[in-house]
Amino acid sequence: MPDHPSSSLGHALLAPRAIALVGASGDARKNTARPLRFMRKHRYAGHIYPINAGRSEIMGEQAYPSLADLPGTVDHVFVMIPGEQVLPVLEQSAAAGARVVTVYSDGFAETGAEGLARQQALVARARELGIRVLGPNSIGSANLHTGGIISVNAAFEADDLVPGDISMVSQSGSMMGSLLSRAAARGFGFASSISVGNESDITVGEVVDALVDDPHTRVILLFLETLRQAPVLAAALERARQAGKPVVAYKLGRSEQGDALSQSHTGAMAGNDAAVDAFFRAHGVLRVHHLETLFEIVPLALRYGAARTEAPAPRVAVITTTGGGAATVVDNLGMRGMVAAAPPAAFVAHMAQRGLRIRETPVIDLTLAATPAQYKDLLEQLLQSDWCDAVLSVIGSSAQFHPDFAVNPLAQAEKPDGKPMAAFLAPEAPASLSLLRQNGIAAFRTPEACADALAVLFQRRPVPPPAGDAFQWPATLPRHGALTEHEAGQVFQALGVPVAPARLVPADKVSHDLPYPVVAKISSRDVPHKTDAGAVRVGIADARELRSAVADMLRNVQVHAPGAVIDGILVQAMEDRLLELILGYRLDPLVGPTVVLGAGGIAAELNPDFAIRLAPVGEQEARAMIEEVRATRLVRGYRGLPRGDCDALARAIAAFSRLAMVQGATVAEAEINPLFVRADGVVAVDGLLHLE
Amino acid sequence: MPDHPSSSLGHALLAPRAIALVGASGDARKNTARPLRFMRKHRYAGHIYPINAGRSEIMGEQAYPSLADLPGTVDHVFVMIPGEQVLPVLEQSAAAGARVVTVYSDGFAETGAEGLARQQALVARARELGIRVLGPNSIGSANLHTGGIISVNAAFEADDLVPGDISMVSQSGSMMGSLLSRAAARGFGFASSISVGNESDITVGEVVDALVDDPHTRVILLFLETLRQAPVLAAALERARQAGKPVVAYKLGRSEQGDALSQSHTGAMAGNDAAVDAFFRAHGVLRVHHLETLFEIVPLALRYGAARTEAPAPRVAVITTTGGGAATVVDNLGMRGMVAAAPPAAFVAHMAQRGLRIRETPVIDLTLAATPAQYKDLLEQLLQSDWCDAVLSVIGSSAQFHPDFAVNPLAQAEKPDGKPMAAFLAPEAPASLSLLRQNGIAAFRTPEACADALAVLFQRRPVPPPAGDAFQWPATLPRHGALTEHEAGQVFQALGVPVAPARLVPADKVSHDLPYPVVAKISSRDVPHKTDAGAVRVGIADARELRSAVADMLRNVQVHAPGAVIDGILVQAMEDRLLELILGYRLDPLVGPTVVLGAGGIAAELNPDFAIRLAPVGEQEARAMIEEVRATRLVRGYRGLPRGDCDALARAIAAFSRLAMVQGATVAEAEINPLFVRADGVVAVDGLLHLE
Repeated sequence: MPDHPSSSLGHALLAPRAIALVGASGDARKNTARPLRFMRKHRYAGHIYPINAGRSEIMGEQAYPSLADLPGTVDHVFVMIPGEQVLPVLEQSAAAGARVVTVYSDGFAETGAEGLARQQALVARARELGIRVLGPNSIGSANLHTGGIISVNAAFEADDLVPGDISMVSQSGSMMGSLLSRAAARGFGFASSISVGNESDITVGEVVDALVDDPHTRVILLFLETLRQAPVLAAALERARQAGKPVVAYKLGRSEQGDALSQSHTGAMAGNDAAVDAFFRAHGVLRVHHLETLFEIVPLALRYGAARTEAPAPRVAVITTTGGGAATVVDNLGMRGMVAAAPPAAFVAHMAQRGLRIRETPVIDLTLAATPAQYKDLLEQLLQSDWCDAVLSVIGSSAQFHPDFAVNPLAQAEKPDGKPMAAFLAPEAPASLSLLRQNGIAAFRTPEACADALAVLFQRRPVPPPAGDAFQWPATLPRHGALTEHEAGQVFQALGVPVAPARLVPADKVSHDLPYPVVAKISSRDVPHKTDAGAVRVGIADARELRSAVADMLRNVQVHAPGAVIDGILVQAMEDRLLELILGYRLDPLVGPTVVLGAGGIAAELNPDFAIRLAPVGEQEARAMIEEVRATRLVRGYRGLPRGDCDALARAIAAFSRLAMVQGATVAEAEINPLFVRADGVVAVDGLLHLE
Repeated sequence: MPDHPSSSLGHALLAPRAIALVGASGDARKNTARPLRFMRKHRYAGHIYPINAGRSEIMGEQAYPSLADLPGTVDHVFVMIPGEQVLPVLEQSAAAGARVVTVYSDGFAETGAEGLARQQALVARARELGIRVLGPNSIGSANLHTGGIISVNAAFEADDLVPGDISMVSQSGSMMGSLLSRAAARGFGFASSISVGNESDITVGEVVDALVDDPHTRVILLFLETLRQAPVLAAALERARQAGKPVVAYKLGRSEQGDALSQSHTGAMAGNDAAVDAFFRAHGVLRVHHLETLFEIVPLALRYGAARTEAPAPRVAVITTTGGGAATVVDNLGMRGMVAAAPPAAFVAHMAQRGLRIRETPVIDLTLAATPAQYKDLLEQLLQSDWCDAVLSVIGSSAQFHPDFAVNPLAQAEKPDGKPMAAFLAPEAPASLSLLRQNGIAAFRTPEACADALAVLFQRRPVPPPAGDAFQWPATLPRHGALTEHEAGQVFQALGVPVAPARLVPADKVSHDLPYPVVAKISSRDVPHKTDAGAVRVGIADARELRSAVADMLRNVQVHAPGAVIDGILVQAMEDRLLELILGYRLDPLVGPTVVLGAGGIAAELNPDFAIRLAPVGEQEARAMIEEVRATRLVRGYRGLPRGDCDALARAIAAFSRLAMVQGATVAEAEINPLFVRADGVVAVDGLLHLE
């Protein structure tokens, strides 16, 4: 957690008035010569103090042997010396008045155990000194309004840097530069750009928090490999949302391989991309899937970026001068669950009255049939219509040679708030892309990025859970380690999840009051995988069969887990069902409590079919989870099959997700598998629960 | 089918020596003025005859009132007059010696029934006259080597058109120009570019065939909305393969909506994108999924484009100067089933001996640790290694400012045949992209297109079926319409598919020799959906129950299908199974005979899980289909579950697929649902078959 208020951090981090460059080189070919050159080139007006023990002059400016020799105080120190020499610089920085030290040096956590120890020592000392560390292994930060380029990134070699309202936070230093160069080539201007490196102290969340207070920043882009300090980021995202500053993220790790690579690359804990995705959605982050969407979406994000809580299969009105070009986007929209909507007859008639003949087709083709004025009028009429949720204009060769025809009308059309409009230009047309961007219109280079942006814009934001009371951990149950199935069942029942009636009886006296047939299981903390151990028997018809089954199971456990302590025999009523589901809870190492609803049965293992949310969830969001799991269609009126009790299921999910509200113990993981869905209610048939 | 040898078509289509422009305008602002201007600008050396009834002079050149007034013969006529005036031009074209008439005019099949009739009349007359029609609704064609720009496409306004070795065939006129402009901006040169319009006569297949013979064409790109005349295209693709000219396709219709849109846009028959995909794979077409991959893949396609018959999860060696940038591609590779391979210890030691320290990680990061010479050496060593199937270089900011570091070594490295190499440049770096392309290296602008290209390059080409005998339609069976289940079973059995033993018995005397329990079904051509009609009963225990079941079913059918003619009762042995599958056959309207293996049961409807191939298939390809269907993992040694007889399953698929070899009738559609997989063999339990 930050020791300092973000406003103070923001000032020293984003807009320092005096900067020291420790390890600045006079050799222009070296990376370490760059920050001074960049800042002079881009006319930074504050004080710059190059520090180099071996030189009194660098690039014609006075250099200082050490921070102790400076004539004034500094806000921000940039350290470019070998990793093992960094620690002493901290003390000198503090003495020189610095609030933030950015460490470019590598040789820390990213290199292994020794480096990690060095990094921990660095942070510990910084805490003692009351200063903050960006990095190590950070390529630095840049403020394009002040010219404060505290970075070695080659992207700032550019002669012109366009100041603007986009800020970027990146866990990859090199990608910060690459994205900046791509966006700049398209005319996107930046406010600040920050590489967080190893995030030993200042994490992405704190930088986002500082950017929320930065007057130049209107939209925040994140290039992420993992998540660190999710609660800090969550709080910053909430502030960004309140301030109306949209946050867009590109995060690696959608494939298992990419996830593993990000983890090894960043030394982060093992994560779960689906959980991170749930985190983004919960906090209204627009997560894009194509690299260039990250900046191409900016005009859309700025005007329409507030995530919607309801917008299923948004209807997009598509107008075009290239049928084939429009189809390339529509095809991609379809794959992302969006619909190209045909104009209704009333709208066709309305346009005919205005002198334009269009047809009731999902793509309105104006190739030969319209003037620029008609094009503009159609756009304006569409933007005022209630039969579509967004307007997409796909422009053909005229974008290249005759911007008057469709590009200019698009730029000039009156665009009311609330209905997003985007453009895809089919030919190579950089000037038109640029013109549209200057007019605040999102114009895309590829059909894939265009569809990506619209899909992301309309993604549904989960309903926040209603405020709920804490759940007091039952005093009778253990507070650490694994519970038995019977104990886990008590917890689930106490939370409000119906559990199959069960009796824990002594192994040598298995009488009980449940109706036959029953299931019998060995109850033992030492036998977690009961089926594998031969410690479960279903469909037991009577008391005689029960005694014989118990004898069998005890023999099996003897072989499988010789020393196992056996609490007794769990006798359970046989339950019927329309559908088997799995309900899971996990304290995700990156994002914290999550709840998962998934299809049950062995076949489901082959076809991932689940919905995940941050926990807890309310019943409304639980209902959205149910609809997201394809298998539940079988109990939601599919082909005349009997309906399951989805209300009870939603209640059970919401109740179970309150494992996140437990007080008096910490649940690491819990699972109900299977959860039976019936026509009247649901019932948990087996379950486990692990405490930290 | 073409009436003319393609070489003759190719000459008049691709390299005419004299061209007439019917409807050429003298008003430079009009589209119809373009072809003359384009051809003069790009120095076409043949004869051009502008035809305009109202003018004797156009753009300073002599114009002619009609084709009848020309001083010489022409090879190719381009028609730009209203659709209803086109027909008479055909006669005059034939009289003037033309072999090909390209019709730009619209108002034909794309506008509805009247236009379709007009188009059919046009083609019929052309056939009589012995001339060929490109279009109507074609934006024309262009030969960039001769300057023969017989097109109104604005893309040819460009002052410089780079001649090259790529030819493009497009079903969308506007996208032909858009793709050309994008590729040209990246320095890709073109040989010919052809818009096929409505394909009333000359289809994509014939154009491809002509391009196989075109000496300037080395690679053929297709922009497709649908497929027409698949057999002609299949033959042309086979010739292209033999000539070593790779064919790359971008086809719309991956989403249901996109498919529907393409169909309506082109007026084609309802198609099935999965079947088209099977067609592409069978014929070695590289189908890309991102628009720009279509041309960005060209250098890869040219050197390594022969589709592989075995390359599961290809191993890609990744070297980079930007860890984050490399991860953006690797993440996408992972989502396409490809693996970033870590160098083995022996290779790490080998490179250490050569003076370069690398690590055994899936991405080899050279950010600070290598010289250009070392970069080049590492590339060359990787290209000679047998532990990877392809090499990917991801270059960071040096691509923008210091091409010496990684771009030049990449261009200069010695590249043996057989191991594909590709590059992704993370920053904006058009000059480096261009330099690499000039050196024949595929360099990608986006990580998505880069992964797309590698995935497509390594896609597996199905094993062609062994030559098989025709299957003579049994004389005892109908030759048209629907068969009964019993009749369909006879066909399947005759092909070699095991069918559950069944007896067709009279409804009033249901004695049979099968062991109980049995299944009983009403046999009637008039009751296709037996379950819905209450005409099936399973698990019948004895003769008494059978009689009562039959009485019930007859009553149900009476209600459900009052006039149904009942052949009798089909009594079938009850079969057990490990897994239920569906085996389907369909004469696809676009690509012809196809065979589909899919997961069975109602839950499978919710999760598409199938494999499709052109029919027939041999047993080897059938085995590949089995592995592609995820559900079959349950009988292939999953979690200790019993194994099914996959050899028998492969035999059954291959036998069933021989429905494509039937002589004496034409099978439109057939289905075995369910097909039971057992530990010993497979058995068809229910089936249907429709003849054309």
